[in-house]
Amino acid sequence: MSREYRYQRLETWLLDGIAGKRWAVGERLPSVREMCAEQQLSKATVLHAYQRLEARGLVEARPKSGYFVLPNTATRAVPLTGSDTVVAPAPVTVSDVVMDVMSRGAAFDILAGLQAQRRPAQSFSEQASLDENIAEASNAGIMALNRSVGRALRSQTANAHHYYDEPAGDNVLREQLAQRYRRYGCERSAEDFCITAGCQQSLFLALMVSCQRGDIVAVESPGFYGVLQLLEQLGLQVVEIPASPVTGLDADSLARALQQWDIRACVVTPAYATPTGANLPLATRKKLLLLAEQYDMALIEDDIYGELGFLGRPDPLKAEDKTGRVILCSSFSKSLSRDLRVGWIDAGRWHNQVKRLKLVTLLASSRFVQQGLASFLKDGGYDTHLRRQREQLRLQRDQLVNFLDEHWAADIRFSVPEGGVAMWLQLPEAVDTLAAYGAALSKGVVITPGSLFSSSDHYRNCLRLSFLHPLTRARQDALKTLMGVLSH
Amino acid sequence: MSREYRYQRLETWLLDGIAGKRWAVGERLPSVREMCAEQQLSKATVLHAYQRLEARGLVEARPKSGYFVLPNTATRAVPLTGSDTVVAPAPVTVSDVVMDVMSRGAAFDILAGLQAQRRPAQSFSEQASLDENIAEASNAGIMALNRSVGRALRSQTANAHHYYDEPAGDNVLREQLAQRYRRYGCERSAEDFCITAGCQQSLFLALMVSCQRGDIVAVESPGFYGVLQLLEQLGLQVVEIPASPVTGLDADSLARALQQWDIRACVVTPAYATPTGANLPLATRKKLLLLAEQYDMALIEDDIYGELGFLGRPDPLKAEDKTGRVILCSSFSKSLSRDLRVGWIDAGRWHNQVKRLKLVTLLASSRFVQQGLASFLKDGGYDTHLRRQREQLRLQRDQLVNFLDEHWAADIRFSVPEGGVAMWLQLPEAVDTLAAYGAALSKGVVITPGSLFSSSDHYRNCLRLSFLHPLTRARQDALKTLMGVLSH
Repeated sequence: MSREYRYQRLETWLLDGIAGKRWAVGERLPSVREMCAEQQLSKATVLHAYQRLEARGLVEARPKSGYFVLPNTATRAVPLTGSDTVVAPAPVTVSDVVMDVMSRGAAFDILAGLQAQRRPAQSFSEQASLDENIAEASNAGIMALNRSVGRALRSQTANAHHYYDEPAGDNVLREQLAQRYRRYGCERSAEDFCITAGCQQSLFLALMVSCQRGDIVAVESPGFYGVLQLLEQLGLQVVEIPASPVTGLDADSLARALQQWDIRACVVTPAYATPTGANLPLATRKKLLLLAEQYDMALIEDDIYGELGFLGRPDPLKAEDKTGRVILCSSFSKSLSRDLRVGWIDAGRWHNQVKRLKLVTLLASSRFVQQGLASFLKDGGYDTHLRRQREQLRLQRDQLVNFLDEHWAADIRFSVPEGGVAMWLQLPEAVDTLAAYGAALSKGVVITPGSLFSSSDHYRNCLRLSFLHPLTRARQDALKTLMGVLSH
Repeated sequence: MSREYRYQRLETWLLDGIAGKRWAVGERLPSVREMCAEQQLSKATVLHAYQRLEARGLVEARPKSGYFVLPNTATRAVPLTGSDTVVAPAPVTVSDVVMDVMSRGAAFDILAGLQAQRRPAQSFSEQASLDENIAEASNAGIMALNRSVGRALRSQTANAHHYYDEPAGDNVLREQLAQRYRRYGCERSAEDFCITAGCQQSLFLALMVSCQRGDIVAVESPGFYGVLQLLEQLGLQVVEIPASPVTGLDADSLARALQQWDIRACVVTPAYATPTGANLPLATRKKLLLLAEQYDMALIEDDIYGELGFLGRPDPLKAEDKTGRVILCSSFSKSLSRDLRVGWIDAGRWHNQVKRLKLVTLLASSRFVQQGLASFLKDGGYDTHLRRQREQLRLQRDQLVNFLDEHWAADIRFSVPEGGVAMWLQLPEAVDTLAAYGAALSKGVVITPGSLFSSSDHYRNCLRLSFLHPLTRARQDALKTLMGVLSH
């Protein structure tokens, strides 16, 4: 953090204040003069921070009056192009581009695989050395994790390899998970969890137990393509519910859809949903839970980004679940490592079915990995890592926002999420990001076109951009290359 | 092997001779006198060995003539009680006992979990010290494997945790697999394989891509309960095809079933099928491949015991597959460790669908585990381990056979497999092993009742017994306890 500029620190402090309601929507921020005196900062620094907030669409500058807090606290207003109406349920067909994107590590990196995994050649520049520092801090956590898993591997009893893991997974790890979720308002115990091979497998299990072939499932639009893929493979029908880049799934649209169709499950990402980074307000959460009860519908909660909130960890939807209709799905892939292949599911009323289905389709999970993880959690290594990881992601989000502000055309709009790993970018109507996929790839740039996030023909002029990786020179160049490709 | 008795060495040599056709079916073995002279052994030793072969049902003693080789070279004749006719396809319903058994590590150990994982208290007795020696030799392989996986874990590049494994799995590991299968007559390359989370997941993928809900699947009877469970969960119908404890699935019965019903897939375990340990003769293999082509049916080959042949590794069915209709499924769980959670599938014409479905339901596998495994294979660690493991399993099979011969009632019959980890035991008609499950469990004995291996009401008087673990005093006591329970 030592490399953070004064204006950035002020900006962060202001953001926290806005998010924490120190200044309500419509309220005036302290004047530049007041702020200079209060924070012992130069006028240039304060102005820079205020203008950045304005550029993000968080505050509005009123001539001669000052800066006022705008309603959408964490985004430029990204309109919902093309999906403000709900289309009748239909089978899912997703283009092969999704498979290509998924096979390239879900395209959280704009650089194609091999290129990205090499350390950047520009590591002597100031920017790159900052990136390295950030990366080192975060890697310290991974190294500690690996030591923990390595210890578990070495300490396995001699003939442990003759036995399978218990069907629900390692009990110590499940106890650790239960403890974490109790912090976030969920009254859960180890027995409520079932360990899986990752969040994607949890979502698969959730859909398998709550739906039958041909059933209708509601999803966010734009929403995670992995879910659309699952629906397609399981022969389920999809109804896409409009989701705001700021406040996520629109509960009123869902209510109307429920009146029309027999929707058996709704997949929702309450915290930092991909691709937008939206966060469900409390009121929406309550509405969703009521609808689930009213229509006897499963709420499949994708909680994979929950731990990555820059301003704290929002309570999961599961915390308010009184009737066991929320199926909580998550994993360590986004918050810790994609290589552990350990996720979990808390399936409420479907718990026994899930346990059975997991046993039958997967048999077991790796015990030493679970044991290593459990120790890592118990020793506080995970919390330490999360603090660094969130800080790093916030810095990287800022790098990306700044870069877009400075280098990209003025007519783009994007969300500025307060957590997660990605933002949603809207380009002028004429741009077709799906059509540009191949051209970008041929120049070593992997993009996730907006169309992937819907099974209808929406979001052709949109794009998900990730800030999971430091914005090295190589990635800046890739973004510039992409700009060139998209402007043709 | 230093602890092996002379009669055991002779018996092994004779077994090899019979299996290798040194003496054909119906031929007379050398007389006791000839054998004594030839092998420099006492008459008692030779007689002991001959009588053991007789007890196994491998040779027949004809008064005044000598010992003659019998037709079934690797078993006591275990009749197919109750399943010699094919019953019409039906949905699968399997009792909760299966879930209980699966949750107890698939009951390859007659001792309940915790008890078994403790080292036996009787380790000072001669028998136990023999077991320990055997176990140590096998554990050396596991320790080497763990070192290899640990090295892979430590050598991961700093930010590797940000990337998912490639969809088909680690390329080096797939190349190693392809090389192994080329040894066994399969002309395969790394591109033909997809890494999975174990054989059970491979079977799941195979059924998902080759069948649709409601389709009919043929299975061996008796056959693996994990497959019956999968069929139930996927809403598939089962038709059980009689399988001999010696020669496995009866191809003629399958042919008749195919004339009657539209069977989309047949799950078959050509090598050391559980529960019997049967091995498909070449003629049956050829018939199966012809039927698959004639009826456009998928042959799902469960190859999980293939590497555990005491007299060598039988070629997989896949070796003869010219039309891509064989889906080869396997893993390292039986031959190496159940805790790796690494399996594979070579799905022939369904390869792309499998890759896609794996990506969508599991996303990825753990790279460091795959890398560690790949090195272990490359360095020859796996082959060394397999040699020890087969030797150990053969000794343990003999321990179990001897124990049954000496301690159990004369009216039992059992198969004596030449590979794998389990044998099939048939008790008198009146015995109900399923009913005895609870009573046995209450005394710390876990059994796998015969009924689990069929979805009809067959095999109530049968039992699978495993020789995966050394027959320690504790396990001998458990077997005696079981005898008591079953005789009530």
